[in-house]
Amino acid sequence: MDIAMIEAAAGRLKGHGRVTPLLSSPFLDEIAGRRVLVKAECLQVTGSFKFRGAWSAISALDPATRAKGVIAYSSGNHAQGIAHAASLHGIPSVIVMPADAPRLKIDNTRALGAEVVLYDRAAGEDRDAIGQAIAAARGLTLIKPFDEPQVIAGQGTTGLEIADQAAAEGVTEADVLVCCGGGGLTSGIALALEARAPGLRARPVEPEGFDDAARSLAAGSIQTNNRQSGNICDAILTPSPGRLTFPIMAARCGPGLAVSEDEALRAMALAFLRLKIVLEPGGSVALAAALFRPEAVAGEAVIAVASGGNVDADLFREALGRFAG
Amino acid sequence: MDIAMIEAAAGRLKGHGRVTPLLSSPFLDEIAGRRVLVKAECLQVTGSFKFRGAWSAISALDPATRAKGVIAYSSGNHAQGIAHAASLHGIPSVIVMPADAPRLKIDNTRALGAEVVLYDRAAGEDRDAIGQAIAAARGLTLIKPFDEPQVIAGQGTTGLEIADQAAAEGVTEADVLVCCGGGGLTSGIALALEARAPGLRARPVEPEGFDDAARSLAAGSIQTNNRQSGNICDAILTPSPGRLTFPIMAARCGPGLAVSEDEALRAMALAFLRLKIVLEPGGSVALAAALFRPEAVAGEAVIAVASGGNVDADLFREALGRFAG
Repeated sequence: MDIAMIEAAAGRLKGHGRVTPLLSSPFLDEIAGRRVLVKAECLQVTGSFKFRGAWSAISALDPATRAKGVIAYSSGNHAQGIAHAASLHGIPSVIVMPADAPRLKIDNTRALGAEVVLYDRAAGEDRDAIGQAIAAARGLTLIKPFDEPQVIAGQGTTGLEIADQAAAEGVTEADVLVCCGGGGLTSGIALALEARAPGLRARPVEPEGFDDAARSLAAGSIQTNNRQSGNICDAILTPSPGRLTFPIMAARCGPGLAVSEDEALRAMALAFLRLKIVLEPGGSVALAAALFRPEAVAGEAVIAVASGGNVDADLFREALGRFAG
Repeated sequence: MDIAMIEAAAGRLKGHGRVTPLLSSPFLDEIAGRRVLVKAECLQVTGSFKFRGAWSAISALDPATRAKGVIAYSSGNHAQGIAHAASLHGIPSVIVMPADAPRLKIDNTRALGAEVVLYDRAAGEDRDAIGQAIAAARGLTLIKPFDEPQVIAGQGTTGLEIADQAAAEGVTEADVLVCCGGGGLTSGIALALEARAPGLRARPVEPEGFDDAARSLAAGSIQTNNRQSGNICDAILTPSPGRLTFPIMAARCGPGLAVSEDEALRAMALAFLRLKIVLEPGGSVALAAALFRPEAVAGEAVIAVASGGNVDADLFREALGRFAG
């Protein structure tokens, strides 16, 4: 993994992915006590950053392999990214999804052209084993959600844009808070920033009780969460950082942060009120940390990556009802 | 009014306003039966396109005049644009607002640094007369919400961006549907497109029962609405097109369109689900027309300007509860 892979992924994405805006609001600056810049990846194609990695990985396959199709396992955002990127390439896709994923994500994945296979996350079924078995039987290429170099390279293109956009705002030294599941986005951004904006430092943000990345960085070795479900931040409830992503993060990232479910919902309400964007809980934890953990961040500005917006209407209404009054 | 004024306004806005993205979703394309490109002006500074015209007008004043301060009358979005642009210039602002404007808009206008004076829209109080009296007494410059050349020039910068962004998407012939109140945004975009993208044609979209622009274009002379309130699209309930904006529109725009309140709410719900942006009712009528009036639009693609997102949480929750299930 190096910056050349990320730049190559950016070249393949051009004209297919979106350069998402870096947003801000004086109201958010006041809450945080410093400038807050929000990278709105909820506005990415399919509603999350995952399209970047999906497109990067599929477009990097050799044509004969790609033509047979791809398979992925995902709680929903990687699923939608793969389904749409596969459709745009004109190839079949199979997505293995937990049966308790938000219905919107399951429906969208099907509507974007994928065949969806459900598994029971609470019963401990192993999505890797399921995915690999189907891949072998049908000759599909498995595209892992984070521990895959071309996926990390694709997510890293977010970091290239952050480096340019922050510089245009006069920000060259700041923490870059990143919603973190398996670490694909965090490690990709960390690699891009190291090369392009060394004064910007990536830091993972997770839900309280699911802070495997933060504990792994603190311990210097991969740590695992006790639970694998039971939190509204469904998009980022991975058991542990990846074997590829962890060493990248360990060498480059600042300490991790964790926020509560209510803080995630409150950040969603503030993003609605002040930025006019829709965030899902797992996509709002970085903004929540920027707003509600000011003492844990240094510097005059902070950058938060708002990584996705695929939330069911009922949960969004709850966030507004409780925190946007 | 000419393209040079709009280009000059774009130069003054650079580094202060935002280049908002042109968004799309395969789900919206399917509903409309053609490609739908959405210019997300809800992501503009202060949550609506109005910041463009406000900044353009204030930045065009001579420094001595500007230093005395500005005054505006507005149902809310022009108010916030003027308040914030004035604060950034370090000058005082007074905003005359209807007492029944959404509370969020009144609160935000005050928080952005303006002195707010309320008037009773339903009782027929004349906001022009109120504004002009205060302006004369305090030496403030009145900045009208639409019938002011530098405001039209500022709103027209939206059209410059649409021309470039649509060309990048391969779209050079299409209707550009614009949420229309007094016609500042519609006329500014029409001027910009005439010069930069002659295959794109601006068309105003209004709420049913408040379609003064559509009827004025059809009649060839300025027509007035019977009612001035009583519709959720508060941002665009002006009595008639302006004396400056109407002739600009009459010479360049296609026929107007009108949508119902429920169609506006449904477009808000679809923008939430498919684009991850927050729209207010008055900012969603153009998208509603693109989605629900396909027979009234010609061509393989349609562009809708989503002009603002300053909506109270309760109304947004209602839109999701009814149309995002």
